[in-house]
Amino acid sequence: MQNKVYIGIIGLGVVGSSVVKVLRKNAGSISQKTGVDIIIKKASDVLNKRSIAGAAYTKNASEILNDPEISIVIECVGGIDPAKKYVLSAINKGKHVVTSNKELLAKYGKEIFEAAKENNVYVMYEASVCGGIPIIKAIRESLAANRIKEVSGIVNGTTNYILTKMTNNGMSLKEALTQAQKKGFAEANPKMDLDGSDAVYKAAILAYTSGGSFVNIKDIYKEGILKIAPEDIEYAKEIGYVIKLLAIIKMLDGEIEVRVHPTLLEASHPLAKVSDNYNAVFVKTDAMGEGMFYGEGAGGLPTASAVLADVVEIAKAISGCCDGEPYYPSEKKLKVRNINDIRSRYYIRLEAPDRSGVLAGISGVFSKKKISIQEVVQRESKGKNAQIVIILHENKEKDVQDALSAISKLPVVKRICSVIRVGLE
Amino acid sequence: MQNKVYIGIIGLGVVGSSVVKVLRKNAGSISQKTGVDIIIKKASDVLNKRSIAGAAYTKNASEILNDPEISIVIECVGGIDPAKKYVLSAINKGKHVVTSNKELLAKYGKEIFEAAKENNVYVMYEASVCGGIPIIKAIRESLAANRIKEVSGIVNGTTNYILTKMTNNGMSLKEALTQAQKKGFAEANPKMDLDGSDAVYKAAILAYTSGGSFVNIKDIYKEGILKIAPEDIEYAKEIGYVIKLLAIIKMLDGEIEVRVHPTLLEASHPLAKVSDNYNAVFVKTDAMGEGMFYGEGAGGLPTASAVLADVVEIAKAISGCCDGEPYYPSEKKLKVRNINDIRSRYYIRLEAPDRSGVLAGISGVFSKKKISIQEVVQRESKGKNAQIVIILHENKEKDVQDALSAISKLPVVKRICSVIRVGLE
Repeated sequence: MQNKVYIGIIGLGVVGSSVVKVLRKNAGSISQKTGVDIIIKKASDVLNKRSIAGAAYTKNASEILNDPEISIVIECVGGIDPAKKYVLSAINKGKHVVTSNKELLAKYGKEIFEAAKENNVYVMYEASVCGGIPIIKAIRESLAANRIKEVSGIVNGTTNYILTKMTNNGMSLKEALTQAQKKGFAEANPKMDLDGSDAVYKAAILAYTSGGSFVNIKDIYKEGILKIAPEDIEYAKEIGYVIKLLAIIKMLDGEIEVRVHPTLLEASHPLAKVSDNYNAVFVKTDAMGEGMFYGEGAGGLPTASAVLADVVEIAKAISGCCDGEPYYPSEKKLKVRNINDIRSRYYIRLEAPDRSGVLAGISGVFSKKKISIQEVVQRESKGKNAQIVIILHENKEKDVQDALSAISKLPVVKRICSVIRVGLE
Repeated sequence: MQNKVYIGIIGLGVVGSSVVKVLRKNAGSISQKTGVDIIIKKASDVLNKRSIAGAAYTKNASEILNDPEISIVIECVGGIDPAKKYVLSAINKGKHVVTSNKELLAKYGKEIFEAAKENNVYVMYEASVCGGIPIIKAIRESLAANRIKEVSGIVNGTTNYILTKMTNNGMSLKEALTQAQKKGFAEANPKMDLDGSDAVYKAAILAYTSGGSFVNIKDIYKEGILKIAPEDIEYAKEIGYVIKLLAIIKMLDGEIEVRVHPTLLEASHPLAKVSDNYNAVFVKTDAMGEGMFYGEGAGGLPTASAVLADVVEIAKAISGCCDGEPYYPSEKKLKVRNINDIRSRYYIRLEAPDRSGVLAGISGVFSKKKISIQEVVQRESKGKNAQIVIILHENKEKDVQDALSAISKLPVVKRICSVIRVGLE
């Protein structure tokens, strides 16, 4: 005999309606594989009235939240208000929650998981980071016996598409963005993607999922791709690198690094090869070593796949003789390391009106700060100014920034065009 | 209060001793994350007497199998005899089993899972396919709501290392093998890796894990890398392809394709970029779309990471108020499609003593069989013979083989050097 689990879906936009679609299509095989019949009892949306065979449509989410037969609520509303209210209300009524809401989980994760723990309910969120890629389960379960040292990810498809087109097709950022919008890989207002905000949300969620800590998103260093010039892409390529927007989480002794910024990656690095709108998360641990999880980071169907994996897991757990053991993130409280204190290699591009004396001046400043140069590339002048590209060995960010501040004041230097961190060491 | 779960380890070779090592090192964090204390009660090995603090060492596996306190047996013996006996004995005594034994699971999977189902115990095998890569859990759980259409993997690190060195460093197969042996990526006797047998085992396991069917490994078409010549690598590169040894599983209507052979992959395909001893499994589904899972496919620590993920999952399930719901593979019985009936594109390299009349002769044969040519590359002669490379559009294998048989008899053709399948469509 099959167990029945009743679910309610709040929000019938792209994700919510895809969840309905995939569940309808594969209900038979899900039931066969898991021994549980998952039944959509009610679905709500303030805007879209969609007909869902066999399920009651309502405009009022409270009809779902107050239905005692519904044990799992899928929140597909997005944003903070009213999604937060719905999620907390479901939790407080003893319902399990599945959500793809990265902003909510990044900003209010601590509060939500505390409420979940108090009510002994599951709050599952595979779909919130990288859509169809099962990175949350991989970290939580498959790497349960590992100590995670680092998680680095291409977690935003819009910016990866733009950087790919700039790299492979020589497009400008604006051209690439226009194409991304045409293809549906960028929203009409792409600000949150381009400035790194979307990646920051996912970084915050990965930080607590991977045994790190809840962090205040204001403490996450954020730098988007708006300043990446075609010249940077070209110079990087020449010296064997690719520019990617990364979310980087590193576990340190009593501290955690969580930051989002463009990074020059060696072309041979697995993340360097992740193209177009695809996402990937690269994980380093003490036992597994290095692993990478790759797939589509957005879109209705991939996201629905992740939402339903969570629904199935909860449904299997609660249809047994007891309610399983919900997972709650790490309760460690770690300080986010200030960006000034991180160590990295650096790519610097600057313009100088004349070559003579420039290198002497620059290397004099670096040498005074004990910063060693790995590589210098001098290019033919474009127009009046010479372009100089410098790669620095690993140094402390603060020292490099101080040196650059001094260099920008040298009379032989016109301006510092770009400073991009290099590598994942 | 923490629950205690007692385990026994049979076999203390590379994998067994790594399991001990990782469990010792991360016991605290595992216990904290999962709420379960996993305790090694006994460990056995006929050869290696290793001291394991707090655990009883024995030469006699039956001491583990007969210990009523041990609820999970980790089989790290490998091979069929006595591993099969140990696994079935553990199952029949109501113990849960975790194993990395790909040969056993490929040859006797059906028997083992039937016994497991009868006894309502878990038999978990994450470590049997691609070591540290959590592909089994991803397929079973993260893709539970998906219909899997295709699973294609670089599942053998030895051959991937060799092909990488042949491609990137221009080595011969023999040179690359010697280097692989020096680095510990190939065994002293690499036969099972080079001829595709190891990949066949993994293909068989993936076939039943991904909702396909138990298959007789004799029905799996197998072709290793021994016939891959440096010329093939070079020509492939010139036309934008990379040669990889793939295990390919495709779900068809009432049938299944399961095959292992070298494949020319477009250089932009995610699998084409998986280098050195790394493994990766590429999955196509109806909802998630395309995903890839990448990591180290062998080695003590990555394999131990996978073994312990399984142990943790069982331990969590059985330490609750009931024993969870063990997973058993698909019971569908599908016919393995004969290699003659598959459809593929093909790369063909042949030698002809003279150019005149060769192309006319060859294309005459293909045209008679209604096989269309996608691309022809004629090379400068090496020595007396001209080298001709032909890429065929998608056709049925049997038709292509028949045409090649006719072509090999043409007086203008000296010999057909290579026939390699192209692409994953």
